[in-house]
Amino acid sequence: MGARLAVRDKTMWLGIVTIFPDLIRASLNEGVVGRAIERGDITLETINPRDYPLNSYGSVDDRPYGGGPGMVMAAEPLAACVRSARENVKPRTLKTALLSPQGARFSQSLATELSQLDALLLVAGRYEGVDERFIKNYVDLEISIGDYVLSGGELAALVVVDVLGRYIEGTMSNPASIECESFTDDLLDCPQYTRPRVFESLEVPEVLLSGDHCAVEQWRHRQRIEKTWKRRPDLLVQRSYKETESAELRDCVSHAHPANLETIEEESLCETTK
Amino acid sequence: MGARLAVRDKTMWLGIVTIFPDLIRASLNEGVVGRAIERGDITLETINPRDYPLNSYGSVDDRPYGGGPGMVMAAEPLAACVRSARENVKPRTLKTALLSPQGARFSQSLATELSQLDALLLVAGRYEGVDERFIKNYVDLEISIGDYVLSGGELAALVVVDVLGRYIEGTMSNPASIECESFTDDLLDCPQYTRPRVFESLEVPEVLLSGDHCAVEQWRHRQRIEKTWKRRPDLLVQRSYKETESAELRDCVSHAHPANLETIEEESLCETTK
Repeated sequence: MGARLAVRDKTMWLGIVTIFPDLIRASLNEGVVGRAIERGDITLETINPRDYPLNSYGSVDDRPYGGGPGMVMAAEPLAACVRSARENVKPRTLKTALLSPQGARFSQSLATELSQLDALLLVAGRYEGVDERFIKNYVDLEISIGDYVLSGGELAALVVVDVLGRYIEGTMSNPASIECESFTDDLLDCPQYTRPRVFESLEVPEVLLSGDHCAVEQWRHRQRIEKTWKRRPDLLVQRSYKETESAELRDCVSHAHPANLETIEEESLCETTK
Repeated sequence: MGARLAVRDKTMWLGIVTIFPDLIRASLNEGVVGRAIERGDITLETINPRDYPLNSYGSVDDRPYGGGPGMVMAAEPLAACVRSARENVKPRTLKTALLSPQGARFSQSLATELSQLDALLLVAGRYEGVDERFIKNYVDLEISIGDYVLSGGELAALVVVDVLGRYIEGTMSNPASIECESFTDDLLDCPQYTRPRVFESLEVPEVLLSGDHCAVEQWRHRQRIEKTWKRRPDLLVQRSYKETESAELRDCVSHAHPANLETIEEESLCETTK
């Protein structure tokens, strides 16, 4: 997080290995990624392990060695999908990522790195239970979208594609909106308000109606610091601070005195960069 | 995490507020949640803010007060959706969750809590930019599926539904597979293998072919400790340990000497429960 956001200017090849290609295609009919595909900024292919089955029944999984519940996705059908994708993207180099709860946690900064690739294959297997030897021989990285267990990797792959899609040039009606949102700068976003001025007797904060651009920016920044301090102090620990931010954060801390005060380390509070 | 997994035995009402109801329905045609809906274990409704528009053009969003890029979803159309859902679920009590990058991080233990509810409404607005006054007056909790920014809350809502769906009785062909997977017990899952015995010259670990159930369990547990230590030492810090586990972890640590050794606090290593 806190990564610089680079905007790409050429087509990215994305592949998804899945036994539910219809689910993937249906999900991409609408939204930013669908529009990027339509314009040709993203090429998206699905590759189905069932086209490379283990037997005449079309199986792509089998029971685990050593016993236990559930099924394990076999190595060979998945390996065949990766080899097929490598052929498809030539002469570009393919990186292969498996969606798995054992993976590195997906984040805005990992998305920034991935968005620089020419060709990325996302393997959506059973979310638990892919033959380890496939991972060893074919997978460059494992990605987890969070600490919870999905029924399959498909939704996780769609999440990665959606976050990546926002980097592709032109998918955003206003590229500036990437620059001031959550996680850029390691801060959560500020509260937003739109018409009407009064909703159920709650008014829009006066400063937002002032027309004073500088005062609005100051208010929003303070709100971001406060919200991050209250909800996600973990994000504040690694961050380096401008002098004005340090003062704002000290002020939040002295007003709040919450139980988790000690999670903000002293050196983080003092480490200022102008 | 590390939560006990409770399995429900009655219908759960799930609602999703979305301007893309087709996307939601298409995604739920297949998989565990689709099957739970078919059997009647889950009732899932979509509610569209466009049915309660701001004006004759059908708008549900508007520009932010104070200026800036992007659009903000207006309070009233969303509020009308929540009121409609409250009517639909009577006499049950509705909890309303907004999917937002500012939310509490979704986890297996939060899923356990949510799975105990009778009726849960997931609001999939623009992932950034929902009028703060709607949140104040109508939202019980904000949920973030991870530290990245999606184009909309729809995929995040589907992730929550999928994880919840796995709790609903009968969605799993084998309920035991929930009990020994990633994040239960604060450990990642062990490596899995299925046929054939040799894949690209890599063999299945001998112990898994031994038929010695006890040896298999010991091997798998050691693998889980090792993998968690290598990839997610943060999960090990809060955990309490059985005596045998403490010994295994000490062994991993003394063999590995990785740079992040200090992330495992001494008291965690010593804190043993039998």
